Amino acid sequence: MFEVIAEQAKPGKFLNDVDFFCISDNYWLGKHKPCITYGLRGIAYFEVTVQCAEQDLHSGVMGGTVHEAMTDLVHLMASLVEPGTGKILIDGIMDGVAPVTDKERELYDVIEFDIEEYKDDCKVKSVSNKLLNDDKTSLLMGRWRYPSLSLHGIEGAFSDTGAKTVIPAKVLGKFSIRLVPGQDPESIGKLTKDYLEKVFAKVSSLHISFLSSTIPYLVLPPANTSILLQFGSPNKLDVELSHGAKAWLSSITHPNYEAASKAIERVYGIKPDYTREGGSIPITSAFEDCTQMNVLLLPVGACDDMAHSQNEKFDRSNLVNAIKVLGLYIHELGSIQGPKPSLCRCEPLSEEELMIPGAFLKGFKCKCEI
Amino acid sequence: MFEVIAEQAKPGKFLNDVDFFCISDNYWLGKHKPCITYGLRGIAYFEVTVQCAEQDLHSGVMGGTVHEAMTDLVHLMASLVEPGTGKILIDGIMDGVAPVTDKERELYDVIEFDIEEYKDDCKVKSVSNKLLNDDKTSLLMGRWRYPSLSLHGIEGAFSDTGAKTVIPAKVLGKFSIRLVPGQDPESIGKLTKDYLEKVFAKVSSLHISFLSSTIPYLVLPPANTSILLQFGSPNKLDVELSHGAKAWLSSITHPNYEAASKAIERVYGIKPDYTREGGSIPITSAFEDCTQMNVLLLPVGACDDMAHSQNEKFDRSNLVNAIKVLGLYIHELGSIQGPKPSLCRCEPLSEEELMIPGAFLKGFKCKCEI
Repeated sequence: MFEVIAEQAKPGKFLNDVDFFCISDNYWLGKHKPCITYGLRGIAYFEVTVQCAEQDLHSGVMGGTVHEAMTDLVHLMASLVEPGTGKILIDGIMDGVAPVTDKERELYDVIEFDIEEYKDDCKVKSVSNKLLNDDKTSLLMGRWRYPSLSLHGIEGAFSDTGAKTVIPAKVLGKFSIRLVPGQDPESIGKLTKDYLEKVFAKVSSLHISFLSSTIPYLVLPPANTSILLQFGSPNKLDVELSHGAKAWLSSITHPNYEAASKAIERVYGIKPDYTREGGSIPITSAFEDCTQMNVLLLPVGACDDMAHSQNEKFDRSNLVNAIKVLGLYIHELGSIQGPKPSLCRCEPLSEEELMIPGAFLKGFKCKCEI
Repeated sequence: MFEVIAEQAKPGKFLNDVDFFCISDNYWLGKHKPCITYGLRGIAYFEVTVQCAEQDLHSGVMGGTVHEAMTDLVHLMASLVEPGTGKILIDGIMDGVAPVTDKERELYDVIEFDIEEYKDDCKVKSVSNKLLNDDKTSLLMGRWRYPSLSLHGIEGAFSDTGAKTVIPAKVLGKFSIRLVPGQDPESIGKLTKDYLEKVFAKVSSLHISFLSSTIPYLVLPPANTSILLQFGSPNKLDVELSHGAKAWLSSITHPNYEAASKAIERVYGIKPDYTREGGSIPITSAFEDCTQMNVLLLPVGACDDMAHSQNEKFDRSNLVNAIKVLGLYIHELGSIQGPKPSLCRCEPLSEEELMIPGAFLKGFKCKCEI
């Protein structure tokens, strides 16, 4: 839907008198300290299919004679991500990811975040009581500003309780990569496809030693040499990017963000934490793409509101303060000096122009504003 | 059920006047040449469980912060079997497997078997058109006399069509090993459990280089040394042997087998092929264990009879010849000289006595017969 809007609506034609957007659809990081959210991760969702036969086979009757699709698939899935660290192993996957700046690190330093509470939220406390990172900044960066890869499951294999002695004929491994700015879903799709095809071509290797080269009629390597033969599986491989969405990142120095920050400070007496989200809210980029105006995510609920779940709640203090914050935010917007973004609207910046130092950070997105 | 019979029934007390058993429950290897079957593979079925959290998590919100169970599980499953060759990678798994004797190889040399037809049966023709082995003997040995490992699937992960962005909390990998004589399910269970636990402890490793050792208050290794830290996943691992059954192997020189062979030769004018089966027919070992008498598998149907499936058939020529073969087989049994096995029944041989060269091959299984 958002893609349709984005294609049909041109900047200046769709919601053309809106100067600033504000979406209040996410949550605070904790229960007490207000936040402003300036980034969302994108996603690239993949299906990797391996087929060995037209239909499922009996492992007693055929086992030991066929190249089983599951063997190939688990090796492909295992080649994607490193246990113990969660490191993504796809060649070049981190190339577009921006290095952390000092300014950015400072944002994380002041964030109020309790790792022990997060272990509760993740339900790992009673199981391993361990996370991929022990310190707050690394943990939050792993969640928001770095990509992550999750293996979701396999379609076509045996997945019920009990024991079935099947050799599945066609299995689809499902996994996704959460993307960050600098990672385009299409390019990541190509990198991933290339990587899996390379792994698939090398899933098996064999050392052959030639102890003798005296077999008549055969030209063999000299005696006592060893060669490495690499041969792939003969099965059918298909890697598909089933859907993708770009990450979104705004700037906390944009007047829209500064207005929200002032409103929060007046209501709560403290500066907000600047947060990002690990998931996606697709309407955010859609508004930005359609209008070229700035979009702000301004959460007003606490992390334990149980969004869309059983016993969803909204604390009374949050409700009262949300009314105050949203009112003051509009008041602060009204007091911004200079040209209104929707009035001075001109051609949006090109990709190249957006790379001019300062242009993006300034937060304005039309030529006359830089 | 068979285990209950085997425990309650003692040799000499259960079916105590039966001298020879004959089961006609399997099929010829092909469509034209009769067979006698002297071996079945056993099985050890495993469930390997990895748990990372109490309940499933959202990959957008939590991805990049938790040790995901699926990452560990696909690495464990991938460590079991080699793609391209089907080689089982569990340490010591082949230790009990007997080497191939010349006598045994001769049995395979004469077997009538069409690899191209088998590709049709396996439904690989239109997919890869390739099997693990290109020659008849290696292919049949892979199917009958060597163990094989099949990965059946994963319970607890996403397995439907479509895309779900879940981090599964608890996943159960299912696989089984088809066992051959010399491989006890319990011992194979222990080997496999030990192996997976060893792999799990080493799924991740990290090289740390010490470039400097001048940090105050810390005793570090000398500068420019490098150590290898190996740390496992903190997740919960459980490996269970969910069920097991021993392989079964008889001797084609036993009078029971010779009687069947003579009957077939008189009806068809050719010697039968001696075959084994990759799967299991548990009543076979149950009869043998309960009575200590010899058991023969005498198939009379063709490989394309579509057992238990749609359009099951039984060729008229097979029906007519089966009547002749079974009649002549009983006639041949009646003409066997010497003591009747059920009359001279004595204590069965001990495991050690069964290892005496010749004792097992002779096919008789009581003390007075060796």
